[in-house]
Formats: sequence, structure tokens, C-alpha cells
Amino acid sequence: MHFLETVRRRWQDADTLVCVGLDPEPTRFPACLAGDPDAVFAFCRAIVDATADLVCAFKPQIAHFAAHGAEDALERLIAHVHATHPGVPVILDAKRGDIGSTAQHYAAEAFERYRADAVTVNPYLGRDSVQPFLDRADKGVILLCRTSNPGSRDLQELDVGSRKLYQHVAELVAREWNGNGNCALVVGATWPEELADVRSRIGDVPLLVPGVGAQGGDVEAVVKNGRTADGTGLMISSSRAILYASNGEGFADAARRAAMSLRDGINRHRNP
Amino acid sequence: MHFLETVRRRWQDADTLVCVGLDPEPTRFPACLAGDPDAVFAFCRAIVDATADLVCAFKPQIAHFAAHGAEDALERLIAHVHATHPGVPVILDAKRGDIGSTAQHYAAEAFERYRADAVTVNPYLGRDSVQPFLDRADKGVILLCRTSNPGSRDLQELDVGSRKLYQHVAELVAREWNGNGNCALVVGATWPEELADVRSRIGDVPLLVPGVGAQGGDVEAVVKNGRTADGTGLMISSSRAILYASNGEGFADAARRAAMSLRDGINRHRNP
Repeated sequence: MHFLETVRRRWQDADTLVCVGLDPEPTRFPACLAGDPDAVFAFCRAIVDATADLVCAFKPQIAHFAAHGAEDALERLIAHVHATHPGVPVILDAKRGDIGSTAQHYAAEAFERYRADAVTVNPYLGRDSVQPFLDRADKGVILLCRTSNPGSRDLQELDVGSRKLYQHVAELVAREWNGNGNCALVVGATWPEELADVRSRIGDVPLLVPGVGAQGGDVEAVVKNGRTADGTGLMISSSRAILYASNGEGFADAARRAAMSLRDGINRHRNP
Repeated sequence: MHFLETVRRRWQDADTLVCVGLDPEPTRFPACLAGDPDAVFAFCRAIVDATADLVCAFKPQIAHFAAHGAEDALERLIAHVHATHPGVPVILDAKRGDIGSTAQHYAAEAFERYRADAVTVNPYLGRDSVQPFLDRADKGVILLCRTSNPGSRDLQELDVGSRKLYQHVAELVAREWNGNGNCALVVGATWPEELADVRSRIGDVPLLVPGVGAQGGDVEAVVKNGRTADGTGLMISSSRAILYASNGEGFADAARRAAMSLRDGINRHRNP
């Protein structure tokens, strides 16, 4: 099924806009996993199984695997989500961006090798660098627009004519790059006003919103400013606040409670 | 030794501005490698050994390995360069860009796991996303500025105040991000006029210039427009035109001849 169709089903049928980010940090794992040679996979699998019914997507961040040579754990983790929680899509957070045949290879990495349903992509290199992703109509292409970090100001806030660069990117994606209806945009939860502005420019294009929880984004402001008319349109991503809710033996239960709390906090503000 | 110091030594002592890009495409390998389960490594090693004395750097492109799960081949390839051709630096062409702890993981991927001497980085997320790379004063941080593809116009040519976005990036990197003197910039060979403009804005900051050869960039224009006063300052990268100069048994010799021809073509225009 088309990625965004799968997400829409989760928004409606599972009644959740939560995306759990899978950013494994072995130094923060619970003591009960110490000495497990497959701890990265075991930790992430436990989080996935404890939260799958509460999420509209999972979002593994590839650098957390690649820095330690744990690509195999990432492959098995995504296969586990597909096998055990069918209908829950997987976004590979890779922020790739390159040209020509190399872009083709990055698309193959995300969609064939890792079997991800969507991938985050950097727009700086322009349309042809994104085309191999756009051409995969069944897959999601999530373009960076306004990232949650302070340094996002350096380029993304520059004035380009009558608007800022991130506003230009939002309109470019929504109006020109989204011919297959498979695009979404990243806007950080740390910029609630910009979220409302972007929403006003892109119609119902979905937004992936990182930065609630550990980075301090306000849930109410995110939902009220980012939602579509039907109270959806958002994949609100939290990683650390869920993954590391506890470092005891009950870490998966604690993660479940944190995800449930986020889901409920979001749902309180979904409808006007 | 500091990456850029190593490159400068190669420019002077080996008298070459050539960078050989290592973009292995198994479908284009010579027939003599058919059936070799380690063909990606074998092919790249043969190219490296045939051209090492002719280059100022090697530049493996990570997607060409990652798409096929060949991270191990990439690790061994870089280790082979360090062991067999000491003093020849390795640029990991990864175009990474992410924030906070994730940027730290990408730096660990490039410098600890792969032992690269430099890495290409995307500037769209701003200063703090690049900081973990900048902090590694011994390593090179090569920021995308003006890429060689047609779509680079979509964002990079936008007017931001009195200059274009890529010109802003060039000045930002040269004046603000280069405190450790370890930055370089990517400007495509397909834009020779922009190359002269960027050079005028950045002093002696080195430029990595892809796009000669298969992409059609003109060597004379690149050298004349991009060189520094001493006839260096450029890492002129070619991949396909060297790697696939022949698909016969003599592919490594053919690659050597192509690299030598490029080196000599460059050197004819280095000095006024």
C-alpha cells in the first residue's frame, strides 16, 4: 500500500499521530541488556513491540546504526516491524541527498535494502536529486523544510524574494514535486508559528514534526498549528523521551506509558 | 596529519590536483571480475593501486557501497589506502547532514568507523549540524556549495539579499565556519563562471570540483577559474571516466592512463 495511505489509516483506525523515533544509544540502554551482543536490535525490538499499537509510524535514524556497523540490526528491525506489525509504516531517517546515479543508489538503499516505506531527504541539491525518490509513487519522500535545531536559521530563514527559504521549499514541494502525491515535509516542533505558516502554504501535505519531548517543543501548539481540517496531517515524532523513559528492567513498559501519554496529549488538541 | 596539509603535500610533492572518485557499479565491472564475491573491493583496490601516485585524494561514494550492503568492502578499501599508500588522503563522499547527537554519530561513522580523512557535508541544517565535524580539526569538512547537477538551480541560485544562496554558503563557510582551517567547498565543474565567483569570495579555501569527464565540465575553465595564486587549491574529481575507461582485463591500466591524461590536462593550465 502507498505509504501516505498507510499513515492515514493509522491516523484514523488507530487514532494516533505519534511517530516513535528509534535512535539507539547503547550507553543509555538498561542494565539488563548489558553484555547482549545483539543489544541494539533487542532494545529496539522491545520498544517496537511495546508501542506498535500506539503509533502511526516508526522512524529509525540510520546514523545510530551506521556509526557502530549495525546495519544488519537495522535490516532485521525493519523486517520485524513488517512481519509483526503489518500496516505500521517505517520511515528511514537518513536525510540523504545526492545526484544522478548516486541518488538512485540511495533510493535503492532505503527501499530495496532496508525495505523502508518512506525516507527523509535533503532538498539542497534540487529536483533531479530527489526525482529517484519521487518516482517511487508507493513510497514516501519526506523533505527537510524547517528543522528543529537553532542552526536551522543559518540558511532556512534567509529571505528569498518575498518569503523565507523554508517557505520556498514548502511551496516548491507541495506545488511542483508532489505530482505523485507521495511527499511530506519536516518542520520542527520548536517553531510552532512557522508550523502554522507552512500549513497555510501546503494544503493537506503531511508534516513530520520532530522536537517534542527532549527538545522542548510544545504539543498543544504543534497540534493546533500543524493539523489539517480533519485533525490529522501530522506525524509527531519523539525519540529520547520514549526510548529512555526508564533504564530499568521495565524500560519497555515505561516507553509504552510515555508513548500513550504523548498520544493522549496530542489527541486532546486534534479537534477544534 | 591534518587533512588539508596532506592534500597540499600531494599538490606539491606529487604535482597533481586529481581526485579519483570510487563509485563502484558492478554492472560496469570488467568481465574478469564476474563471479568474484568480493568484486566491489577487488575492483576498487585495483583502481587505487593503479592510480595512487597520480592523485591528491581518493573519494569513495558511500551509497555505491551501502545500496548493496557492502560497508565491509568500504572499510577494507579505506584501510588498504592508508596501509599501502600512506599520505594519500581519503574523502568519504556521504553528504551527511543532521542535528545534535545524530550529527555526532555521522561524524563517528566517517572518522572512527571508516577512518576517512574528510567527509562531504550538506549545509542546509546550519552551523550546529556541522559543528561535530568542524570540531575535528585534523579532519576535512567539505561543504556542498554549488553542485554540478541541473537541479542545483532550484535552491542554490535563489537570491538571498545581494547574492545567491550558494555565494552566501561560500562566504559563511570561509568566514565563520572555518575557524579550525579545516573546511573546503564543493563547486561543480559544470559551472565555471560560478567557480571564479566562489574563488573570489573564499581566499585560499580548497575546492572539491566534481563533474569533469562524464558530466562534461571543461578542464581548462575549471583550472583557470578555480585555482589559487600558486596554481593549486583544487581537488578535481573524476569517477566514471577513469573507473570505466575500459571494461577489459586491462581496466586498471586504462584507468591509470585516463588519470594521467587528466592530471596532465590540468597541469597545463595551473600556472598563468
